[in-house]
Amino acid sequence: MSNDPLVVFTPSGKRGRFPSGTPVLTAARQLGVDLDSVCGGRGICSRCQITPSYGEFPKHGVTVEAGALSEWNAVEERYKTKRGLKEGRRLGCQACIESDVVIDVPPESQVHRQVVRKRAEARQITMDPAVKLFYVAVTEPDMHDPSGDFQRLKDALAAQWQLEDVQIDLTVLTGLQPKLRKGNWQVTCAVHIGGTPRVVEVWPGFREEPIFGLAVDLGSTTIAAHLCDLQSGEVVASSGLMNPQIRFGEDLMSRVSYSMMNPGGAAEMTAAVREGMNALFGEICTEAGIVRADILDMVLVCNPVMHHLFLGIDPFELGQAPFALATSDALNLTAREVGLELHPSARLYLLPCIAGHVGADAAAVALSEAPDKSEDLLLVVDVGTNAEILLGNTTKVLACSSPTGPAFEGAQISAGQRAAPGAIERVEIDPATKEPRFRVIGSDLWSDDPGFARATERTGITGICGSGIIEMVAEMRLAGIVDASGLIGSPEQTGTERCILDGRTYSYLVWEKDDRRITVTNRDIREIQMAKAALYSGARLLMDKFGVDKVDRVVLAGAFGAHISPKHAMVLGMIPDAPLEKVTSAGNAAGTGARIALLNRAARGLVEATVRDIHKIETAIEPRFQEHFVNASAIPNAVEPFPILNSLVALPEVSFNQGGDTGGGGGGRRRRRG
Amino acid sequence: MSNDPLVVFTPSGKRGRFPSGTPVLTAARQLGVDLDSVCGGRGICSRCQITPSYGEFPKHGVTVEAGALSEWNAVEERYKTKRGLKEGRRLGCQACIESDVVIDVPPESQVHRQVVRKRAEARQITMDPAVKLFYVAVTEPDMHDPSGDFQRLKDALAAQWQLEDVQIDLTVLTGLQPKLRKGNWQVTCAVHIGGTPRVVEVWPGFREEPIFGLAVDLGSTTIAAHLCDLQSGEVVASSGLMNPQIRFGEDLMSRVSYSMMNPGGAAEMTAAVREGMNALFGEICTEAGIVRADILDMVLVCNPVMHHLFLGIDPFELGQAPFALATSDALNLTAREVGLELHPSARLYLLPCIAGHVGADAAAVALSEAPDKSEDLLLVVDVGTNAEILLGNTTKVLACSSPTGPAFEGAQISAGQRAAPGAIERVEIDPATKEPRFRVIGSDLWSDDPGFARATERTGITGICGSGIIEMVAEMRLAGIVDASGLIGSPEQTGTERCILDGRTYSYLVWEKDDRRITVTNRDIREIQMAKAALYSGARLLMDKFGVDKVDRVVLAGAFGAHISPKHAMVLGMIPDAPLEKVTSAGNAAGTGARIALLNRAARGLVEATVRDIHKIETAIEPRFQEHFVNASAIPNAVEPFPILNSLVALPEVSFNQGGDTGGGGGGRRRRRG
Repeated sequence: MSNDPLVVFTPSGKRGRFPSGTPVLTAARQLGVDLDSVCGGRGICSRCQITPSYGEFPKHGVTVEAGALSEWNAVEERYKTKRGLKEGRRLGCQACIESDVVIDVPPESQVHRQVVRKRAEARQITMDPAVKLFYVAVTEPDMHDPSGDFQRLKDALAAQWQLEDVQIDLTVLTGLQPKLRKGNWQVTCAVHIGGTPRVVEVWPGFREEPIFGLAVDLGSTTIAAHLCDLQSGEVVASSGLMNPQIRFGEDLMSRVSYSMMNPGGAAEMTAAVREGMNALFGEICTEAGIVRADILDMVLVCNPVMHHLFLGIDPFELGQAPFALATSDALNLTAREVGLELHPSARLYLLPCIAGHVGADAAAVALSEAPDKSEDLLLVVDVGTNAEILLGNTTKVLACSSPTGPAFEGAQISAGQRAAPGAIERVEIDPATKEPRFRVIGSDLWSDDPGFARATERTGITGICGSGIIEMVAEMRLAGIVDASGLIGSPEQTGTERCILDGRTYSYLVWEKDDRRITVTNRDIREIQMAKAALYSGARLLMDKFGVDKVDRVVLAGAFGAHISPKHAMVLGMIPDAPLEKVTSAGNAAGTGARIALLNRAARGLVEATVRDIHKIETAIEPRFQEHFVNASAIPNAVEPFPILNSLVALPEVSFNQGGDTGGGGGGRRRRRG
Repeated sequence: MSNDPLVVFTPSGKRGRFPSGTPVLTAARQLGVDLDSVCGGRGICSRCQITPSYGEFPKHGVTVEAGALSEWNAVEERYKTKRGLKEGRRLGCQACIESDVVIDVPPESQVHRQVVRKRAEARQITMDPAVKLFYVAVTEPDMHDPSGDFQRLKDALAAQWQLEDVQIDLTVLTGLQPKLRKGNWQVTCAVHIGGTPRVVEVWPGFREEPIFGLAVDLGSTTIAAHLCDLQSGEVVASSGLMNPQIRFGEDLMSRVSYSMMNPGGAAEMTAAVREGMNALFGEICTEAGIVRADILDMVLVCNPVMHHLFLGIDPFELGQAPFALATSDALNLTAREVGLELHPSARLYLLPCIAGHVGADAAAVALSEAPDKSEDLLLVVDVGTNAEILLGNTTKVLACSSPTGPAFEGAQISAGQRAAPGAIERVEIDPATKEPRFRVIGSDLWSDDPGFARATERTGITGICGSGIIEMVAEMRLAGIVDASGLIGSPEQTGTERCILDGRTYSYLVWEKDDRRITVTNRDIREIQMAKAALYSGARLLMDKFGVDKVDRVVLAGAFGAHISPKHAMVLGMIPDAPLEKVTSAGNAAGTGARIALLNRAARGLVEATVRDIHKIETAIEPRFQEHFVNASAIPNAVEPFPILNSLVALPEVSFNQGGDTGGGGGGRRRRRG
């Protein structure tokens, strides 16, 4: 056994002997310890911070004495003065091993650090983005041995970072020469490392500033974008926008029809959505205080119609059987070739589509919620204009989509709006007095808390968002304001003057101030009934196909805004009956899936493989779907399918049939499909 | 041994036994016989035409009887009626083997057919272009097993053509669905097969029309383009254009200076050259009767400054030591990303550069003339504004470039013009009478032949092209009109009234009609002297570096126009002394190199490897180059270096020094280099 000092790294436990004077970073690399470095050990980036531990470590069989590492040096001192360094920390590239030592690698110094996800059941994200920074020193040109500046950069990336056969974008190549000289032959490269590595940007010297990526969920009604730091994984800004295509049709099939009826209609919609996204990206950059050129990677998820319209493919074939996609595989593009204004070489990854009606958004939900890794039978419902539904466990996973319409996103609802400050997102109605209290986005106070008026002064009370309308209708049902068929009762029937005649039916007055009112109309209730029936039917269809009549666990996901309340979703009959503690809310799971694919390259391959294994169910041709739909429009229509729910809440047995409008039933939404 | 019929293919001699009823195409494929097919054996493309031979074949041990192939069938009859089929020919996919047979595969039915190159010493071109057509039948979509249309096309290309993991351009993907349906799920794909195969275009059904590629030699003074049929290899049209960058400077260093002195100057020149190329491509399409979208591949060769300016890279660094290229490797781009208007997915391959002053054009000359494959010591001189010079044999190859200026391309010459109909390209001057006769491009007659006036009526006589000016000056020297120092004599000194006073020196009158005159001025002679001195010095420098004082063989190449006359080149002293029968003229060798790379994929890899092995010599820093230059301006300056030449032609010992202008010498051109 050698007499060289022993070094033990924690938390990995990796250990080895190295000659005295070996830098800690060198030892870590040789042992395969996950210790970050962007500058390659030049004392510039400070990513390789470590903490030596002193004392006796019986577990490791080591006693560490003072002086186990070389003395604090000038590089470290300069770094500490300029940028600060936590007490006890050293730079791994500067501190050298002198005798036996135990070295702790703090989480922020790990290359493959974990990004925090709050929910316990969620798949963890390990940082390994597709676009990374590499600092290199490039050999200067020599007239007697001529080679291109790029070829010498390529050699440097191979020698210093083991990136073999690197390519370069033409837009980067055209600006390379002055940058190399300005940086005195030291540059920071952003390299895209999916497939053949490609240099997508070069900066003179060491780049201090982070680079960013976008995770975008392009929905039929809303577009949600999260801006992530590609080194820390942190979401630095999020923003949303109504999809500007709404003016061509609120649901997908209306947009397909628009393109069929209007020559150039598809191109018009492509331009509209790309413009909208560019506007959204501008907003998000302003919010984060960065410029578009700082964004070097993007992941996009969306349903098949949006997928085709975004790419410039006429969605005609998606409007009729056999609902053939132009392409179902994941796509690796540049943002520029689809008209997105980010960095000129920014990459764009689109997750694969599952089937003609089950898109990359469903794939993203599968990536985020991982039904294929669940021992329990898991139902995942992603609520949107088109709902994505997944059912499965480790044995198999089924998927379908269901045309719920835009009601759950606040559209087609009289006081509906997208989730933004001022929108009602939480509601309670007192069953005795029928009086509501609510909370709006932007304040933690309830409307009957002192200070609520002041707290909402800036935003106002502007409408009801998607998750708000779900709670609202469910609370109205629980308070006996709405009957099982979906009718709002009269003041006499309900005992509250908040029920006001509005044409031939009644509306419920939620809030009024001066001449502004927020009400829930009977038409709003109808929209929600249709939407929830479509959702419920899709879930039931998958259960039929799986051969089960109950599920172990339900995850409710919503494209944007507050989390959906499991209790209210079940009161409404959106989802099959399940133990309430087994129903959780996941927020924007499709967006989370996009974020996972943005921050972890391997997740891209993973979701591509998962999608290949998913069993695809086409609701449009399944007679059982129609049957379930017809039976599912009541709230709930019978005690029968909801034994668990009925044991938890009291659903008043009221009936407000005033003749004429017989409520419930009916096919309106079904006509959306060919 | 099986009793199955024996089939012998000629000329390959490949043989094997196949069950009776096997189509000839199937047998050919199994034996690896080079028999073409685009439609995959569906009787559509007729590429698999073969000729059965009947009788006794002792050499093959076969007797072929009538009925050895199945009967002429309806598919063949229909093809013959619609398009014609040579007597005795059969379609290999229709004719089936019934008994022993000898099958001849005519050259036009071979996939890897040879393209005819006239010169015996030239490297042959085997057809194997990077963009090829494939006809496929695609499975229709199935709702119960959903997959994208492109994924099924991909599967078809893998199953029917062994093209694995094919990708597709977004611009093609967007139009794929209607084409598949219009072709009833049968389409012709153009696939680019360098690296990962990519579908670059799709046509419904079987495409009858050929597809095309461009081989372009982008010179400092002229741009020459050859349009090639990518299936036959034939050059269907050629055209040339003055480089529009000439307005920014006639030689390369003037253009580099322009970009240094004018902010945005490089971008201006980039735009100019791309615009010029687009105009040229428009012309060439009109000439060939095709549209731009029929052009799917392009190969470009050029010198380093043109290379950078074309790509949009500021050539600043090429104007000063150490003359660092931004990139030296070959580039695979799309025509569109550099602003060229061809098919939207057309590919563009740029040959590698050899060094800061030795470009992709020199690499193309190396590919065409193959000094690395020569047993003799071969000197290749490519005459242009920047001359590329290669010297080598199988042991090693040296390369340099020399700044000759644009005189050899007809620029800076008073009556100079680019090689186009009407330009004088061949000259003879009677040593006794001093009377000239000449030929112009567009006619085979000499100017003193009967009918010459009529034959040149349409084009007129418009000027002197590059190869014409070389012959002109050499003939003037041989006829004693010019002395060794480069001075034109007076009428008294030369005995001809064609020598006319023109300022302080004399000019030689070549032709006049009405008020139009073509003369050679003494300034023209000076320009040619400078140019040839630069050329000669470059060649001598390489010989010094190789350690030789003579070469075995010389190839003279010129970027455009008629071939350069070896005799006249040597009289002028453009090239070192060599046996006249060992000096040949290769026309546009750089353009030919581009054409080889266009028609044969493997040639691309080959030239990349060759370039890596070439020894680069930088003339700008070699004192020997300057020495040679100073000594090389006379025509020839002494008997000494040209013993072979002197034994062949009589160079009159005249001297016309009239004082003042002392001729020869001098560094004017040298200032072009930093």
